[in-house]
Order: sequence, then C-alpha cells, then structure tokens
Amino acid sequence: MKIPVVRNILEANDRIAAENRRTFAENKVFVLNLMSSPGAGKTSLLERTIDALHKDVRMGVIEGDIQTSIDAKKISKKGIPTVQINTNEACHLDGNMIRATLGSLDLKSLDLVIIENVGNLVCPAEFDTGENHKVVILSVPEGDDKPSKYPLMFHESSVLLINKIDLLPHVECSINKIKKSALKVNPKLKIFEISCKTEEGLSQWYGWVKKKVHAYTRRKSNR
Amino acid sequence: MKIPVVRNILEANDRIAAENRRTFAENKVFVLNLMSSPGAGKTSLLERTIDALHKDVRMGVIEGDIQTSIDAKKISKKGIPTVQINTNEACHLDGNMIRATLGSLDLKSLDLVIIENVGNLVCPAEFDTGENHKVVILSVPEGDDKPSKYPLMFHESSVLLINKIDLLPHVECSINKIKKSALKVNPKLKIFEISCKTEEGLSQWYGWVKKKVHAYTRRKSNR
Repeated sequence: MKIPVVRNILEANDRIAAENRRTFAENKVFVLNLMSSPGAGKTSLLERTIDALHKDVRMGVIEGDIQTSIDAKKISKKGIPTVQINTNEACHLDGNMIRATLGSLDLKSLDLVIIENVGNLVCPAEFDTGENHKVVILSVPEGDDKPSKYPLMFHESSVLLINKIDLLPHVECSINKIKKSALKVNPKLKIFEISCKTEEGLSQWYGWVKKKVHAYTRRKSNR
Repeated sequence: MKIPVVRNILEANDRIAAENRRTFAENKVFVLNLMSSPGAGKTSLLERTIDALHKDVRMGVIEGDIQTSIDAKKISKKGIPTVQINTNEACHLDGNMIRATLGSLDLKSLDLVIIENVGNLVCPAEFDTGENHKVVILSVPEGDDKPSKYPLMFHESSVLLINKIDLLPHVECSINKIKKSALKVNPKLKIFEISCKTEEGLSQWYGWVKKKVHAYTRRKSNR
C-alpha cells in the first residue's frame, strides 16, 4: 500500500525540482544540497565555507530544520542572505519547500546557494530539490560502515566530505574503509578528508566549490 | 496533500502496533525500541547489554537496517536469537515490519526483546512498533543542540543514553546543556551518561533494564 503513495510524492517532487532547477539556471545560480546525519558538521562546514569564499563568491543559504532557527541565526550573523525552512515533522527538504523560499532570496544577486538539509542520512537523499550537486558529510565518530548501511545517500551525492578527522586517534574508524565502501556504491564520488575544527583539508573543498561555481557562472554569461 | 497520507499510515500503524503489544504481553516479553542517529552506538550498546544481562535475562533482538545484515551478524555471534529486517528504502521500522518478524522468534522462551531501529533521529520516533519503551542514544560528537533540534525523538523516549562520554575532552559538547534541553522537551526522561568504549556508566543502564524486565515478568506471572 505504501510504495505507490511514496512514488506519487516522488514524481510530483521531481516536477517541482525541475522547475526550481530552471529558475536557478535562469538566474545563473549554482546550488549545492548539503546532507548528513545530525551533528556530522553541516553548519560548521557552512560557516567555514562562507568565511573562505564570501569575498569571491556571492552566497546565499537555505537552512532546513525540523524546528528552531539555531543554525540560520549562526549563518545570518555572517551577513549572508539566509532563509529558514521549518519542516515541522518532516525529515527532509523537498522541491516544494525550496520553491517556497525562492521569493525570499534575490537570486539575481547570487552566484551560489547552499541548502543545508535536515540532519538525516536516509530520507533527504530521496528528494531532488533542484540542486546542481548533492554533497554528503560523514563524520568519523559515526563509523566506517555507514556507506554500506546507508548506500542511497552515497549513491546520490557527487561529493563526500569525511569530517572530524582530528578525532581519528580517539575512535575506531578506518578512512580507507569509508572510501572503499563509498566508491563501491558510487565510483564517481569525489572525496575530501577534512576537519572543520583544525581546518585540515578544507582548502581542497574550497577549491572544488570555487572551480564549479566559476565554470557554471562563466558558461551562463557566455550564452 | 501529503499530511493526510501520512496520517492514514500512522493510524494504520497504531492498530498493528497495538496488536504487537498484545502479542508481547501474552508472551510476557518486555520490549525496548532503541533509536539514534547513524553511528551513535546502538549496536555497541546492544553487544554490551547482551554480555552483561544474558545470564539473568532471556534476550532476543530484532535488527532493523535499510540494507545489509552487518549488525545482525555481530549480535547473532553472541548466541542470541536475532531477526534481521531489511527495510530497503524505508528510513524507520513500523508496526507491520515488527509483526512480520514475530513468527521467527520463540516469544515464549524470551523475557526481553530489543529492537534496534534504523539509524535516524527523526522518523523512527513517529512509529509505534508495540514496544514498552522507546530508548534514544545521543552521542556527544553530535553536539548538545540536538534535543532542541529533533524534539520528537526526545519527547517520545522514556530513556536517553548520552554515549561516547570518553570523547568529551576532544569535542565541544556540554552534558548539562543536553540534559537541560532534553528535560525541557520531556521532563520525565530518565538519563544515563555512558561510554560503550570505557564501560563508564553502563551498570546504571543494566540496572534499569533488569529492574524493568523483572517487574514486568513478575507482574505477568502473578496474573
């Protein structure tokens, strides 16, 4: 009984996400959909990325949370246009929720929008929001079996950020095992090892974002 | 459009969960539904709890995973009756999935069944499986803002286990803040601070489980 219901929801979502994608493209905005378990480091990564890139890249943020605006408050302190979505009970963002925020962001003035999804390693992977790429963060205290156990998230993402590598001496977790199992699920996955605490590895991530945004906005300008 | 669909599913689920609850009670089996984010330590806690209690308490385990049977293999090595549920894409266990496992467990020979839910701090809280108590694990690397950000999980649970306290010197996390915000959501929440690595605090948890199981099975015997 349940599967057809879910299918209908996903089909309707895909149509709305495609509209979002057209709107973003018309406004030359590159969009990343950032996903992870609760507490893997999405907001910390976002704060670091804003600090590193805001002079080169005009950024906006869409914050997804079940309740509260704790994260949106942190981000808006940085002077970045930020919209909060409170999903109430919903465990993921979908195309329609993102659609509803677009009137609150001046897309013409932005190069990059980062969507911070609800903390959940399962459901957000099922829902297209109209982004260019999905990005997943896995933190080392979560353990190295997660790409095998939650494969859809790693299959749908273009980038895997292995975060909190500063904790490696204190936890049982093999970076090689994470990489191997993640690449088995998705051989095209781009992987960065980072620590938002020590900043190790972050410059490679910043480089990837900048290159992608510039390639995208340049291509759009040449039309 | 989506809310009524979800409501129907939840109502149907409640009916099936109530049937499960009757079946467990008829067989004098006490049931805990163990929930957390991916990698917070559900399986480690289960392994420790089996080692500590299996001589006093006849235990069975229902393992919920999206894919793989990594956890069920770990548990069944301990000689405990174990049933694996693979949910495929579903992000939580529901009453019907638990119902389907009951033929595979000899309930008459058990005092306690622990259900290990899918790693997800959101959806599992919405679904009654027929358990006596929901138990949530929050690990300190996830951060101290989680009870505020994911309140339903903490509202629905009877017990909160704050795990990985051995990592406190290495992460930014206040145990007091976790407790305060969790008790704000649910003033009746029983809280234990534990480390499955160092075993700190686990004896209090074992004591709680034993007391609950014995009170339950004794009450049933006196009928």
